[in-house]
Amino acid sequence: MKKILNAPERALDEALRGLVAAHPDIVAAGESGRFIVRKQPKASGKVALISGGGAGHEPLHAGFVGVGMLDAACPGEVFTSPTPDQMFAAAAAVDRGAGVLFIVKNYAGDVMNFEMAADMAGGDTATVITDDDVALLDSPVAAGQGSRGVAGTVVVEKIVGAAAERGAGLAECAALANEINAATGSMAVALSSCTVPAAGKPTFALGDDEMELGVGIHGEAGRERVKVQSADQLAEVFLASILRKIDTTANTDGPLLLFCNGLGGTPLMELYILYNSAAQLLKRHGYTIARSLVGNYCTSLEMAGASLTVTRLNEDHLQLWDDPVNTAALRWGC
Amino acid sequence: MKKILNAPERALDEALRGLVAAHPDIVAAGESGRFIVRKQPKASGKVALISGGGAGHEPLHAGFVGVGMLDAACPGEVFTSPTPDQMFAAAAAVDRGAGVLFIVKNYAGDVMNFEMAADMAGGDTATVITDDDVALLDSPVAAGQGSRGVAGTVVVEKIVGAAAERGAGLAECAALANEINAATGSMAVALSSCTVPAAGKPTFALGDDEMELGVGIHGEAGRERVKVQSADQLAEVFLASILRKIDTTANTDGPLLLFCNGLGGTPLMELYILYNSAAQLLKRHGYTIARSLVGNYCTSLEMAGASLTVTRLNEDHLQLWDDPVNTAALRWGC
Repeated sequence: MKKILNAPERALDEALRGLVAAHPDIVAAGESGRFIVRKQPKASGKVALISGGGAGHEPLHAGFVGVGMLDAACPGEVFTSPTPDQMFAAAAAVDRGAGVLFIVKNYAGDVMNFEMAADMAGGDTATVITDDDVALLDSPVAAGQGSRGVAGTVVVEKIVGAAAERGAGLAECAALANEINAATGSMAVALSSCTVPAAGKPTFALGDDEMELGVGIHGEAGRERVKVQSADQLAEVFLASILRKIDTTANTDGPLLLFCNGLGGTPLMELYILYNSAAQLLKRHGYTIARSLVGNYCTSLEMAGASLTVTRLNEDHLQLWDDPVNTAALRWGC
Repeated sequence: MKKILNAPERALDEALRGLVAAHPDIVAAGESGRFIVRKQPKASGKVALISGGGAGHEPLHAGFVGVGMLDAACPGEVFTSPTPDQMFAAAAAVDRGAGVLFIVKNYAGDVMNFEMAADMAGGDTATVITDDDVALLDSPVAAGQGSRGVAGTVVVEKIVGAAAERGAGLAECAALANEINAATGSMAVALSSCTVPAAGKPTFALGDDEMELGVGIHGEAGRERVKVQSADQLAEVFLASILRKIDTTANTDGPLLLFCNGLGGTPLMELYILYNSAAQLLKRHGYTIARSLVGNYCTSLEMAGASLTVTRLNEDHLQLWDDPVNTAALRWGC
């Protein structure tokens, strides 16, 4: 294993220390546990948003803490759920009297621990589970565990973060989060595995001519292992599954947000090529792309690969997407 | 070779098409050649900034085209200089009557072609060569060719871009660019090679326990091939060389910009760990870090590795750094 670090067991804490040191105007370390809070607390009487999950998906979630997005993020060790006490402490730290919304990717450990945190915190919380991965929608895996929460979580956090900043109440924020999640589909491809620092060796193996279609962000098996596909072919497979979800679950005449996300080890040039393939295909089929995002936002350490996420938006969503945001990883209007 | 693309020979054009499609409010394709211009032309009477170089370093340079930074970028094929006619056409397209500043990384092909473009364009241009790489300062390589221009070029483009936006004249912009370049040092480490799409195989080979210290952004040999070093050790080696340059060439009491740059295949978590090592070391030695940047800004395709860049700033530079910028890859205040 070759990585830039000092010791695997100190990697997460050192990365968090680096994040806070690099963006002292945006984030701060939680005083009572391992979590990151925004530097300037939200105004009193507004709903607080908290997310979290295993590290290794950076900038998700700590990179999205700041004005217009999350109030706190609770990172666990790499690919490991944070603990309920982290979430409870974070909720206590950022609750501004209007309740706390937990945004949780659909993984058993995360869901269970956030549930316990909600119990500990008492009544004034709501929880939304994101499950935007469409790769396994027809498989027994999804039938048992539901779909996985992946890059679409970023879209939920941005849009609901803006609504909370505007003063939307807890029930309204939760409903909006569920609405965006339902209007969002994602699918990924891996060209390589990643290596969890504490494990020291790759999570899985892929042949030199193979791709894993529908891979999960922890390296979970996808839908199919295939020979190398072109960007056009990947876009076609991904969009077919994504559109099958969002064309049935959401308002079907709104424009789209098209988000091409890198898994960590893929150059930006390839992300723009995949974005281009997807955008051209969508336009050929009569869809309108109103907003775009291209970059590494929900990663799997150094995994080579990428995902496409599409969200169906309405006019309100567009405005919330455009609202100012000031986080380490997403910033505009501030 | 596994990459997300359709055909190596179409990779650059498709990536540029993707960039323009994803950010239609920020950039547009040049009408008369292969270059990217800002969507909203700069006001008449202001200096235009143009940079360029081989593709494969994205977001450099096309990702920095926009309000507050570059007026145009001329990309060549991967790791290949753009041609003088691209640069000439770009200059003609963005010249607003106050002259054009070419910002050129110090590579023989780029320097030669930008010189030819300046000759073609006639009198009202100036050229600044960036050479921030300190890895080979004491070697015969640098003695012959000068130092390489690497990630520090981003800092030059941001600060001089702001000055041009404020209305600084051509000579003033050129002097400022030279001043920032002189106050900037960078050094990189590679943990892996990268693969140029048209070549189809890795540029160089590194053992499983080896790192290339001082590697160039095209995979050029560095100062030394070493066994794996810790983040703390890397920060110490890099900063020793960087500070030796900027503590002698620049005003020595200003605060620092500390920039930890990923080469393309290294996760953000590791970049923040390296940033943390560097920040702690600088603070222990009494330096003040006033601004920070962490992410993939000057890459080498999917190379695993990172660089540190430090720039010594004065109060004017700080304000120019903070000025609004609206590009695909760097955005604040807009």
